Amino acid sequence: MQENYNNISSINPKRIETLVDGVFAIALTLLVLGITVPSITSPTEAILYQALVDLLPNFYGYFISFFLLSVFWRINHKQFNKIRQADDAMLWLIILWLVFVALVPFSAFFIGEYGNFQIPNIFFHLNLFAIGILLFLNWRHAINSGLVDESAIKRQKPALMANLMLPSLSLIAIGVTFIPFLKEYGYGWSSIVYFAIPFLKRFIDS
Amino acid sequence: MQENYNNISSINPKRIETLVDGVFAIALTLLVLGITVPSITSPTEAILYQALVDLLPNFYGYFISFFLLSVFWRINHKQFNKIRQADDAMLWLIILWLVFVALVPFSAFFIGEYGNFQIPNIFFHLNLFAIGILLFLNWRHAINSGLVDESAIKRQKPALMANLMLPSLSLIAIGVTFIPFLKEYGYGWSSIVYFAIPFLKRFIDS
Amino acid sequence: MQENYNNISSINPKRIETLVDGVFAIALTLLVLGITVPSITSPTEAILYQALVDLLPNFYGYFISFFLLSVFWRINHKQFNKIRQADDAMLWLIILWLVFVALVPFSAFFIGEYGNFQIPNIFFHLNLFAIGILLFLNWRHAINSGLVDESAIKRQKPALMANLMLPSLSLIAIGVTFIPFLKEYGYGWSSIVYFAIPFLKRFIDS
Amino acid sequence: MQENYNNISSINPKRIETLVDGVFAIALTLLVLGITVPSITSPTEAILYQALVDLLPNFYGYFISFFLLSVFWRINHKQFNKIRQADDAMLWLIILWLVFVALVPFSAFFIGEYGNFQIPNIFFHLNLFAIGILLFLNWRHAINSGLVDESAIKRQKPALMANLMLPSLSLIAIGVTFIPFLKEYGYGWSSIVYFAIPFLKRFIDS
Repeated sequence: MQENYNNISSINPKRIETLVDGVFAIALTLLVLGITVPSITSPTEAILYQALVDLLPNFYGYFISFFLLSVFWRINHKQFNKIRQADDAMLWLIILWLVFVALVPFSAFFIGEYGNFQIPNIFFHLNLFAIGILLFLNWRHAINSGLVDESAIKRQKPALMANLMLPSLSLIAIGVTFIPFLKEYGYGWSSIVYFAIPFLKRFIDS
Repeated sequence: MQENYNNISSINPKRIETLVDGVFAIALTLLVLGITVPSITSPTEAILYQALVDLLPNFYGYFISFFLLSVFWRINHKQFNKIRQADDAMLWLIILWLVFVALVPFSAFFIGEYGNFQIPNIFFHLNLFAIGILLFLNWRHAINSGLVDESAIKRQKPALMANLMLPSLSLIAIGVTFIPFLKEYGYGWSSIVYFAIPFLKRFIDS
Repeated sequence: MQENYNNISSINPKRIETLVDGVFAIALTLLVLGITVPSITSPTEAILYQALVDLLPNFYGYFISFFLLSVFWRINHKQFNKIRQADDAMLWLIILWLVFVALVPFSAFFIGEYGNFQIPNIFFHLNLFAIGILLFLNWRHAINSGLVDESAIKRQKPALMANLMLPSLSLIAIGVTFIPFLKEYGYGWSSIVYFAIPFLKRFIDS
Repeated sequence: MQENYNNISSINPKRIETLVDGVFAIALTLLVLGITVPSITSPTEAILYQALVDLLPNFYGYFISFFLLSVFWRINHKQFNKIRQADDAMLWLIILWLVFVALVPFSAFFIGEYGNFQIPNIFFHLNLFAIGILLFLNWRHAINSGLVDESAIKRQKPALMANLMLPSLSLIAIGVTFIPFLKEYGYGWSSIVYFAIPFLKRFIDS
């Protein structure tokens, strides 16, 4: 069985981490392509200043996406610190997860360009929801299939809770986009929900 | 001979793996550039929703390319788990292989934009065929030149079969584009052939 | 406490370095996208030559950004050579730092396109100031929280000085953009300040 | 002296290799952006086929650049196999080298778009000349400063010759662009000079 060419019960988790780290580093850096230098035919200082001001939603999308991707990268690393073995199911869960991670630059550009509308914000939150829920499913799979450290099993309940926090926030953010008066202030404010992460983290840790 | 500056019989396979992992992580993440945020002058919720619907072929191209590249990355890693030594021929086979791997973002954009036509779908399948057949040639070269583990030699026949599965599917997919009535449904359906991979994999494993 | 899933006092600095190296390699290579091949309808040798000449400010932005990012990468590596442990605060300082590192391709395009104006040059220098000051804050935090080697503590004062050098140069460069007659020569010359780095480095080393 | 924060005589060559590998993987993968999916308003099979044919120079630029960058990556790895120590001068030689490596996607796009003209081809060859000569200078510096293995010193002369081969080919290629009748056939043929690499390599090895 060990010699089976297609047997992958012995996947080295380090190898998955390498792919994950690569995709994250690139997705993070591609976010900047969502802030496009305006093409101005007869520029002046005032016009260039205004162009930067007009890019503020793009900068906002850049910063929040960078922050959220970093949070997910951090959680993934915490998980893999405890994962001693990987199997086929985990590999494909992680690859499906990367599909949505690598999609974030698109979602970020979408809210950068049309952040005042509801559709792009819902799309952005759904993208983050998919990332969060797949990370949760990966951790649950790792616990259930005995792929983790013993130390992690003792603490599995808070860890699962922590992993549900992020997809829950995405659902709340989607709900927020339906608040009637939000339209006037701009749907982009729905992302403010994610700034709860540092505070919630401390609450779960204690 | 060992001191020969140009002697590369002692290539460390880890080094090749590093380049492979890098190119894959980037090619996977570049796929998202094939889903371009539409440029709309007077956007409304309905127009933005429609714009997302119009991007469905691009999302389809994104997902299927991400999935297929991941399959190839996985097979490459399985091969290199068994490869203990690399030589000049292997290095250049892998680099030629990467030429076609790095070309996938182009092919994915091509079917994303013009997926209803036969030419882009044939191009996409030919690209995947080249990737698959080069992976097969690399494995055959490794077996024939004694660059692999002894354990792998015992199982070399099913491994070679597994490696021929993917290029065969690409040839079938090309054949499918010639089915007369496919034009009506859209040539993009020819890619459905690749969803046989998970099932075929199990068959070969057993 | 060791079993706490959310406890990250034991972050491996190597892991942070990997993310940093990835983001830098990509940011460096994305800089080239700021030099866009001109789209010419009826090209001649003379027109193509002129197109290259017109790209000179873009090449200048490319070279200086490549050089400055390399300097920051080098300093970061020097810091992490001395850092034996990482904590949560350091992780987020570094991620905030990467936000500004990954922003450099935008800033470089901005001065490449509109380098004769003051606003893009100030934006560029502010971007570099943010990178420099965050690197300084990271080092100060590492010293104050006892995360560094003993050998580094003995030499902490010159190290902090070295880390303040770069943000100071950015402030000087911003000041230079306010020199009245600079407008005539082009604000891009304000970047010349950074060429003092190799000389200042030697001064601090001695 | 060892405690000197700015002392970098002890640079780990592995660290430089990591940056080099990252920049190469990205530069190789960015080359594909030079093959842009044509934007066609009313596509037909014939028009799409013609669009692919029109992209042939871009594919040519892609393949040759991929091949040449791989050759340089290979030589760099051979050098670093023999380099046991790095110093400040080597670090900056390599970074300057990477400046020109990361520029190749631009040069490749340039010959892809305007390959029938002399200027883009000379630019391309000059770019490769810079890469080749810097690699030669790095190796000479390594030999002269005693940063290499003893085994390498014994074979240093053929190694230096091998390193001069590539910049020489670039100079020949520039010369070829001045052949009067080349204009009729297209200046892109000047790149054919580089196909001598595999043959020359064998000659030097023997």
